[in-house]
Amino acid sequence: MHISLLYIFDLFGTAIFAISGVLLAGRLKMDPFGMVVLASVTAIGGGSIRDMMLGSTPVFWIIDNNYLWVVFVTCLFTLLLVRRPRKLSWYVLPVCDAIGLAVFVGIGVEKSLLLQDSMLVAVIMGVITGCGGGIIRDILAREIPMVLRSEIYATACIAGGIIHTLSLYFDLPSQVSFLLGVTTTLTIRLAAIRWHLALPTLSLKH
Amino acid sequence: MHISLLYIFDLFGTAIFAISGVLLAGRLKMDPFGMVVLASVTAIGGGSIRDMMLGSTPVFWIIDNNYLWVVFVTCLFTLLLVRRPRKLSWYVLPVCDAIGLAVFVGIGVEKSLLLQDSMLVAVIMGVITGCGGGIIRDILAREIPMVLRSEIYATACIAGGIIHTLSLYFDLPSQVSFLLGVTTTLTIRLAAIRWHLALPTLSLKH
Amino acid sequence: MHISLLYIFDLFGTAIFAISGVLLAGRLKMDPFGMVVLASVTAIGGGSIRDMMLGSTPVFWIIDNNYLWVVFVTCLFTLLLVRRPRKLSWYVLPVCDAIGLAVFVGIGVEKSLLLQDSMLVAVIMGVITGCGGGIIRDILAREIPMVLRSEIYATACIAGGIIHTLSLYFDLPSQVSFLLGVTTTLTIRLAAIRWHLALPTLSLKH
Repeated sequence: MHISLLYIFDLFGTAIFAISGVLLAGRLKMDPFGMVVLASVTAIGGGSIRDMMLGSTPVFWIIDNNYLWVVFVTCLFTLLLVRRPRKLSWYVLPVCDAIGLAVFVGIGVEKSLLLQDSMLVAVIMGVITGCGGGIIRDILAREIPMVLRSEIYATACIAGGIIHTLSLYFDLPSQVSFLLGVTTTLTIRLAAIRWHLALPTLSLKH
Repeated sequence: MHISLLYIFDLFGTAIFAISGVLLAGRLKMDPFGMVVLASVTAIGGGSIRDMMLGSTPVFWIIDNNYLWVVFVTCLFTLLLVRRPRKLSWYVLPVCDAIGLAVFVGIGVEKSLLLQDSMLVAVIMGVITGCGGGIIRDILAREIPMVLRSEIYATACIAGGIIHTLSLYFDLPSQVSFLLGVTTTLTIRLAAIRWHLALPTLSLKH
Repeated sequence: MHISLLYIFDLFGTAIFAISGVLLAGRLKMDPFGMVVLASVTAIGGGSIRDMMLGSTPVFWIIDNNYLWVVFVTCLFTLLLVRRPRKLSWYVLPVCDAIGLAVFVGIGVEKSLLLQDSMLVAVIMGVITGCGGGIIRDILAREIPMVLRSEIYATACIAGGIIHTLSLYFDLPSQVSFLLGVTTTLTIRLAAIRWHLALPTLSLKH
């Protein structure tokens, strides 16, 4: 995959996740700067954990401040555009979250394979990049993290990460692999949101 | 201590902590992949924080994927074995947690002394390795972290870590020191669970 | 700024934040060792995240154990002094928190500029150093993190960090810049506590 295309996807996912942070901050009646904090955590939290675990420090947004500017500009635009007094539909937040999730899983897989060889670790780094920011966002907002709710969430990330790495393993071009992985994650997650799909849960009693 | 024995203990503690994650996931009615996420966080979260703080990156499970396989296989076995419709006794989860805790405190002390000399830091790294994964597990599950409940928890880890480092300081063989430390942590924690022991708490009013 | 003065401020902020951890632990009726854990997390958590993100590992308190001793001694003194049966006024905890916050924002800005050049990153590292420990403290104690409450909190840190970096940019001496930044953060935060100031919040509906 050309680094430049990966880069554009990365900034795009950053913007999408920042929006999801701003929308949650709005529901929590936070002030504008608290909102920027929540948007930043959501947008760059997962990748920061990934980089710290891989030992790729300083983390990505310290080296390339564009990620931060994308967050700030997104915050501003979201505020200006969304502020009009019309009610957002219930699915806007989960769908934004799903798009950011899918892109970030792909980014995490790509970046981790630049730094090490294990495909297992690549899938896990995809899941961490995708889910990490949202988990921190939900912990800060005292919501139950989406990854723990019964609707398919981690499952979508793991499936996307596996398709992505398998495609690379079978020598598909990296752009194709990236898109296959992202599409897999996004499709599964959107289907889960739309039809409230859930895997059978464990009914351990203790 | 022979690295090989340390290694076996480490994988054993990983499996025990993964079980504690699976059991909690079962109580929370999570789907199988969410369960794997919670088990992984519990089993490798504390060691990951330790490695990141010590600057020993990539963190241990990126370098040695065996830890991950132990988590996955443990998840599978726990599911197959525990799924039978018999009620687990109330003490299974805390006792699993206690065993993993004791082993991980010992591992954390050992590993940190390979990387730096301070015995104070070694005790703290023991506490972080032991408590870190469980704290993240409890935060994700929105339980009050065990370390904050009145029953002796951090106290057991600190006592075990101090016995472990003191034994090394007085030139006891490292295997003996390890076992003394682990036994100390485990005994105190099990006693606290069995008899609901607690240190006197602070009654600051404000 | 002379490193030695920075160092004294750093240890001072550490002690102040440790007190805020001990007081919260007292309200939660934790045992003495759990209290030490909560005090440590509050006092050195933010700086640890900063160092891990900057790749400045091992983190500061592993290299210089004085920070740990300050936490322990502060815990001991707070216990001895506060234990008397007189009620602490409601504002003691927020004011302690505000002082630690202001000092740590300044420390974070200073330290990050030793390691990299971006002033934007410096402000953010100030915010992380200042808010990080308190956020972890509040998450562990299952309080709503102060940064998310409507009273001005992140706003004060961001303002202080910007004044600090702008002063450096305009070639003011680093001690003056440090004090201007700390004073800004502290003044805004104390005013917010005293008069319950809040920025207008976002009223996004969704």
